[in-house]
Amino acid sequence: MSDALLSVVRSGVDTIDLGRQLRVGMPQSPNHPAFWHTLPRRHGDMVRADGGSAANDMLSMGTHVGTHIDALSHVSHDGKMYGGVDAAEAGIGGKYDELGVHTIAPMIRRGVLLDVPAALGTDLCEGGYEITVADLERTVERQGVSVEEGDVVLVRSGWGRLFDEGAPYLGKETGVPGVGEAGARWLAEHRAHAVGADTIAFERLAPHGGHALLPAHRVLLVEHGIYIVEAMDLEGLAARGVHEFTFVLVPLNIYGATGSPVRPLALVPA
Amino acid sequence: MSDALLSVVRSGVDTIDLGRQLRVGMPQSPNHPAFWHTLPRRHGDMVRADGGSAANDMLSMGTHVGTHIDALSHVSHDGKMYGGVDAAEAGIGGKYDELGVHTIAPMIRRGVLLDVPAALGTDLCEGGYEITVADLERTVERQGVSVEEGDVVLVRSGWGRLFDEGAPYLGKETGVPGVGEAGARWLAEHRAHAVGADTIAFERLAPHGGHALLPAHRVLLVEHGIYIVEAMDLEGLAARGVHEFTFVLVPLNIYGATGSPVRPLALVPA
Amino acid sequence: MSDALLSVVRSGVDTIDLGRQLRVGMPQSPNHPAFWHTLPRRHGDMVRADGGSAANDMLSMGTHVGTHIDALSHVSHDGKMYGGVDAAEAGIGGKYDELGVHTIAPMIRRGVLLDVPAALGTDLCEGGYEITVADLERTVERQGVSVEEGDVVLVRSGWGRLFDEGAPYLGKETGVPGVGEAGARWLAEHRAHAVGADTIAFERLAPHGGHALLPAHRVLLVEHGIYIVEAMDLEGLAARGVHEFTFVLVPLNIYGATGSPVRPLALVPA
Amino acid sequence: MSDALLSVVRSGVDTIDLGRQLRVGMPQSPNHPAFWHTLPRRHGDMVRADGGSAANDMLSMGTHVGTHIDALSHVSHDGKMYGGVDAAEAGIGGKYDELGVHTIAPMIRRGVLLDVPAALGTDLCEGGYEITVADLERTVERQGVSVEEGDVVLVRSGWGRLFDEGAPYLGKETGVPGVGEAGARWLAEHRAHAVGADTIAFERLAPHGGHALLPAHRVLLVEHGIYIVEAMDLEGLAARGVHEFTFVLVPLNIYGATGSPVRPLALVPA
Repeated sequence: MSDALLSVVRSGVDTIDLGRQLRVGMPQSPNHPAFWHTLPRRHGDMVRADGGSAANDMLSMGTHVGTHIDALSHVSHDGKMYGGVDAAEAGIGGKYDELGVHTIAPMIRRGVLLDVPAALGTDLCEGGYEITVADLERTVERQGVSVEEGDVVLVRSGWGRLFDEGAPYLGKETGVPGVGEAGARWLAEHRAHAVGADTIAFERLAPHGGHALLPAHRVLLVEHGIYIVEAMDLEGLAARGVHEFTFVLVPLNIYGATGSPVRPLALVPA
Repeated sequence: MSDALLSVVRSGVDTIDLGRQLRVGMPQSPNHPAFWHTLPRRHGDMVRADGGSAANDMLSMGTHVGTHIDALSHVSHDGKMYGGVDAAEAGIGGKYDELGVHTIAPMIRRGVLLDVPAALGTDLCEGGYEITVADLERTVERQGVSVEEGDVVLVRSGWGRLFDEGAPYLGKETGVPGVGEAGARWLAEHRAHAVGADTIAFERLAPHGGHALLPAHRVLLVEHGIYIVEAMDLEGLAARGVHEFTFVLVPLNIYGATGSPVRPLALVPA
Repeated sequence: MSDALLSVVRSGVDTIDLGRQLRVGMPQSPNHPAFWHTLPRRHGDMVRADGGSAANDMLSMGTHVGTHIDALSHVSHDGKMYGGVDAAEAGIGGKYDELGVHTIAPMIRRGVLLDVPAALGTDLCEGGYEITVADLERTVERQGVSVEEGDVVLVRSGWGRLFDEGAPYLGKETGVPGVGEAGARWLAEHRAHAVGADTIAFERLAPHGGHALLPAHRVLLVEHGIYIVEAMDLEGLAARGVHEFTFVLVPLNIYGATGSPVRPLALVPA
Repeated sequence: MSDALLSVVRSGVDTIDLGRQLRVGMPQSPNHPAFWHTLPRRHGDMVRADGGSAANDMLSMGTHVGTHIDALSHVSHDGKMYGGVDAAEAGIGGKYDELGVHTIAPMIRRGVLLDVPAALGTDLCEGGYEITVADLERTVERQGVSVEEGDVVLVRSGWGRLFDEGAPYLGKETGVPGVGEAGARWLAEHRAHAVGADTIAFERLAPHGGHALLPAHRVLLVEHGIYIVEAMDLEGLAARGVHEFTFVLVPLNIYGATGSPVRPLALVPA
């Protein structure tokens, strides 16, 4: 059997990294255990008779840190998760057998970038700005790339430019731009398989509002079973003007977890 | 520009998972911090005014647990890492700026499975068995698939069948099958980009021998800069008789670490 | 006001350490997250302009590791904790507001050592041996030291001699000596404030039996509100022939936890 | 042999807690891994056949969080620790065999509170205020309690009142009050065994200055081998007007660590 995929891969494919580097001190939501990395053993700590030495690591972290994916078990509404699963009961035992991150299949799919600030003629959407349905449609139209069933749709706000500044990225005072309930419904109507954003919480956060209300999470995770990817780096993709690509995302297969750190990729012709 | 990759992907690709599920209590090397997952917040712990609730996770773990990749910073010999980098000096600061796992590019490459027990007419190689160069060549010949420069070469011993039994997989008393120094040199001569195995330490471990000597690590990581992937699940791939495929591996981008948990995939025509 | 305590303390008091040293790899119950200690920063990693440098630590661990105390929130029976508190409800929120380790007052109290093997004329009680009420009474009689209300009663089995051997201390195959339900009732009838032992689980464990049944925990923690201290080092105290002393135990004040690592002391005249 | 200590203890002693409660989210230095506590198992997750159930904990934390003690291995100057120990060499192996927290003997000693704001006629010393030698001497004089060799000397600034406010306690913008180099020398000249304070870093921190310079740490830990206890709660002690007491501090016996969380106590006549 001829393997068309392998032939294309061997002829050359470019990889654009959509994940943030995991570093101690990077901005993350204070609701989740902080990312820590340390070396229990460094070279020279213990050298074997033959001159060999091994160094190793210890990690302590939440799963919703760095670029990460939300499993359907992450959010519930009125006591129910996606599909009407009883949320309190599902957690008994200390892991989500149902809807845990282990149930997310690795994604090798069509990806679409919606470069909203490019369509709005700005560098980045302001803190607290709600990306409207009109904004999304204007972006699709300008790009000439439609959203199709099963796609992974990445909504760029430009806010990712603040990631390296730390606290401003979290937008505690300024708020954070993103879609609201209406935008989330639009994405669900277009039957996205998963959605992503370059912000900490995917959705629009009001200035000084914190994470008190997360309507897009409800619409996407609870009502429609659509995965959410957060804290993506969409700057390189946008800079290349790529709006359609092969999207690769492989969550860690953590049994019963509510999310996973990920390093999504966009593959494009070399 | 036409995107041949995306066309193939959209026409359908099968994904074979080569990673083990991360579970508390799974077998792992006692040299590395144990994998622990717990839920700090479960649904119902804190319900927002609108009926929304979020659950989250905490992980504590080494990076060389579950299926994982060794960065070149993992092993040194006589005080030097790959390329002659001074190993003790490189660790000052508590992270490996050079040769850390953040320097491993995501892999979308040709993968080759060397199904050694199939070539030897057995279910699995015994504990402590050294997979010889003759075994590797016999396997290549039987399969009719050559190893080429830049490939990721997965050496199946069949020992992965013991993973779910726990302690026997570690082979403390029995030893573990795998290549030795000679097999590692053969892989390096074939200019593999990375190699993988279905065992805990890639290489042959003698009964009662522990991890006292790791010659294949030295040859591959230190002398040739070839990455090693351990504790893979190669049973599904072998059962399908697939020996050549598109290999996908995306390490977490942990700045300065010596390894990363991974979930490698084999992509084959649907 | 004259401070008689301070006068005695200043005239000299001997301190006997009843706690085990916390070390990576020490024996502990596999039910609890393993103790790990690592240095994120070592001297020389980052030196300030003035020549100063600081090293620091990271710990990952359960609370029931090393020498530790069980809070009343640790165990429930038929859905109830001590005082009839609903156990499932108490855990909502992810911490035990009621009966958590933060509710244990620091102890400066009379302590009594019951040196059972000394009374039985043996070095140590065998694995799986149940210390009977007759054994306890024989020990009290031989020592000539009565147990009084409010005391902390330490039951030595001699099994602590195996601590440094690692796995044998856990007694998976051999079982572990200790009191059973009857001995626990005897301790409760004597109105101990807390009890301790030199074994991993305080009570008698059957060979190959694991922790399937823990009747002494039920009697002490659930029925009588008596704290349990485990994995103590009672060898030094026994060697000195001290059976009555000032007992000092200060749990970490971890809000809502089910236990705490501790380092209990016996204070005796210098 | 009569046990005067036990007699006094049995006649009644009051315990004043000088430690802060360990809670997720409490203020701590960002240089150290954050304190996290979570329940891997809650009651009801797994119920044994007899109706028994156990809950347990997982901690991830630095050792310099909450109220804690600094071991002599914590700080070095010009590459040397206390006693001229080579600091870089001492860390090889990943633990401080010399001067680690395991080398600190439990303390049952005379304690002295120096209530500086009381002597200065204020509620609390301002952020960035340096407590001078004159302030310390004025306090001693006013209290009529001398500092003697081997004492544990607790310097109250009143800043501890801000602990529950979180960020203000860290004083990033305001600075933090405390002794400087001169005050540290005064404490060393009085041959204190250990010193403590109600602030995050024991010493005076300049507004916006961070932890760039820590002269008191150098004087105390490196030059004189005097332990430092930080983030103490001295409000209760001060409110009772107690300036002399029996001080109890039992560090966790963590082999090779640079510090330990502690819960110090002041014992006073009932």
